[in-house]
Amino acid sequence: LAEYMFVCPECGFKAPLNPRITQCPKCGAPLRIELIGGGFTPLRGRGVWRYKGVMPNPLHVDNPISLGEGGTPLVRRRINGIDVWFKLEYLNPLGSFKDRGVSVAATLAKSLGYSTLVEDSSGNTGLSTAGYAAASGMKARIYVPADAPEGKKKLVRLLGAELIEAPSRSDAARLAEEQLRSGEYHVAHTWNPWFIEGTVTIAYEVSEDLSWTVPSTIIAPVASGTLLLGIYYGFKRLRKLGVVEDESPRIIGVQALGTTPVYKAIHGESPQGYSRLIDALRIPNPPRLKEIVEAIERSRGDVIIVGDDEVKPALKELAHMGFIVEPTSASAYAAFKKAFSEGLVERGDSVLIPLTGTGFKTLDILLEVVSGQ
Amino acid sequence: LAEYMFVCPECGFKAPLNPRITQCPKCGAPLRIELIGGGFTPLRGRGVWRYKGVMPNPLHVDNPISLGEGGTPLVRRRINGIDVWFKLEYLNPLGSFKDRGVSVAATLAKSLGYSTLVEDSSGNTGLSTAGYAAASGMKARIYVPADAPEGKKKLVRLLGAELIEAPSRSDAARLAEEQLRSGEYHVAHTWNPWFIEGTVTIAYEVSEDLSWTVPSTIIAPVASGTLLLGIYYGFKRLRKLGVVEDESPRIIGVQALGTTPVYKAIHGESPQGYSRLIDALRIPNPPRLKEIVEAIERSRGDVIIVGDDEVKPALKELAHMGFIVEPTSASAYAAFKKAFSEGLVERGDSVLIPLTGTGFKTLDILLEVVSGQ
Repeated sequence: LAEYMFVCPECGFKAPLNPRITQCPKCGAPLRIELIGGGFTPLRGRGVWRYKGVMPNPLHVDNPISLGEGGTPLVRRRINGIDVWFKLEYLNPLGSFKDRGVSVAATLAKSLGYSTLVEDSSGNTGLSTAGYAAASGMKARIYVPADAPEGKKKLVRLLGAELIEAPSRSDAARLAEEQLRSGEYHVAHTWNPWFIEGTVTIAYEVSEDLSWTVPSTIIAPVASGTLLLGIYYGFKRLRKLGVVEDESPRIIGVQALGTTPVYKAIHGESPQGYSRLIDALRIPNPPRLKEIVEAIERSRGDVIIVGDDEVKPALKELAHMGFIVEPTSASAYAAFKKAFSEGLVERGDSVLIPLTGTGFKTLDILLEVVSGQ
Repeated sequence: LAEYMFVCPECGFKAPLNPRITQCPKCGAPLRIELIGGGFTPLRGRGVWRYKGVMPNPLHVDNPISLGEGGTPLVRRRINGIDVWFKLEYLNPLGSFKDRGVSVAATLAKSLGYSTLVEDSSGNTGLSTAGYAAASGMKARIYVPADAPEGKKKLVRLLGAELIEAPSRSDAARLAEEQLRSGEYHVAHTWNPWFIEGTVTIAYEVSEDLSWTVPSTIIAPVASGTLLLGIYYGFKRLRKLGVVEDESPRIIGVQALGTTPVYKAIHGESPQGYSRLIDALRIPNPPRLKEIVEAIERSRGDVIIVGDDEVKPALKELAHMGFIVEPTSASAYAAFKKAFSEGLVERGDSVLIPLTGTGFKTLDILLEVVSGQ
């Protein structure tokens, strides 16, 4: 069996895993779950829980809370002589990759006896949390900034969750924490190391679909880092467990003009501007910043910044390939095109682009954007 | 290899398969593709094309037109002592089970050298056709009745297809046929026997997920019959090929109050009324009526009629389980509840309910319905 421990990415503190702990008891930073060793166990079924046997022990439960998350299509398109692998994360049950992490967090919460899931989110994670609470018979309370897309807010209510609007994204996070009562579990995806155990499975699925090989480059949006870090750790684990022989892929993070903490941490300064469309990447102070920077630098990767002017044509091009995604998802494809024109990816590369969220939920925005083209 | 032939369900005419033919040359009825014999070949990959080796020969192409259709989650819920298996067909790439059939039809059209896909549809099939044309580099022209949901119409345009509005559903079908030019392929899902080769894979997936066993009952919406017949033939083929030992399941079709041709054909008369919400089932004269009736009767099944008053609470209950589907999809769950209260399904049964289309595309309708509850 694979074995894991907690490591603090800030102060280096190490400890055995504890399903109730998410922050470093020494310095308060969000903990990381590190693979120590062990083996890859037989896989069973489909989706996220196909890899249950490889997950850390607290997740070895009999009945995970599942809506069929994961097992998403991997679709190849040849673009500019490059094999581009689109991973259709928008076909998850509530329409985004967040379902993977929430499925894991909800399973953990339920197994620990919690009765309510609480989350702060600008959209997709709140929706996922409401969905998995519904699936599990738990209650849900979701804090969202007032300017979150209307469609997503309405869906949260439709799923039976309580919705609380806060003036801003950071107010939503603060209120969620302050108003947390006994018996309530704060999913806290930007902090929670268990959440990342869900996104790790993206790397497992991609590699399994590619007969246990690895793409040369990943281009993924980065806000709180749950997607980018999950994929990064997933490929590293496969190598450590001896399942793949390939070098781990280069990680290229994508940030939105105006909110570029990872870019700044690596390059010192960043272009000025603002993106209205790439709303899900507006997280100015990601708690896992240091970890994200390390992942990118160790993989010899980089960060690419894109703005609305690049996302709009990307969104339209994706639709004309048959992929209906939300603007934030299109940022990774916009970054791919920029990376190609700048020589960062080239002929012979194989590039994984996760398409993170469905465009169906925010159809009005999508149609406005594309008709303006 | 599995071998197939054309059989006319109306006049009994038999002929070898021909990828360019869809209607009986003798009487004009839509043909059926019948398994003669042969074996089940090794399965590879995921989704619809995992079963390529079992499909009729004209579909043994190297590069099927694919957006990752099929391979949808099968989620079990225990309801009233019954194992209910929800097949989440709404997680197909364009949001409905139609993607399976269109993927097959588009693959056939491309392999035959056609340059344009034409379809008449009230929504989902048009959207799928636009999506698969986009995926394949073909053009698309979609005829819709003017009263089709706005969201679906806009999506067709977003995918780059030409949209033509007709006064009614039957006008749309007539115009699509009349205006068909050389080099254009009419998907014609209500007629095309090749389309059903896509939906057949639902049965294969369900049975494979259940370790090659079979549910005791299927409850599925029936309009033109492409879903119901695909599932029925799929399970029958598995038995004929010796892959499963179980009896084929009982098929319960679901129709909408006001449009009940199958119910009438079986029971002679039907309740009066009208359903506004179950719009995708409003097909008064399905070309495959005789075939549908035979499938239901031979499986010792039945037809259940539901109306808006039953669909509304079903839609809400599904959302409260975490399933966001369109009203037409909820009709099957409404029928399940009716079947239980009438003793048609009981404790110990295992029931397959395909949830056919996503609610994200028609969010306004969904929210209006549920807020009215």
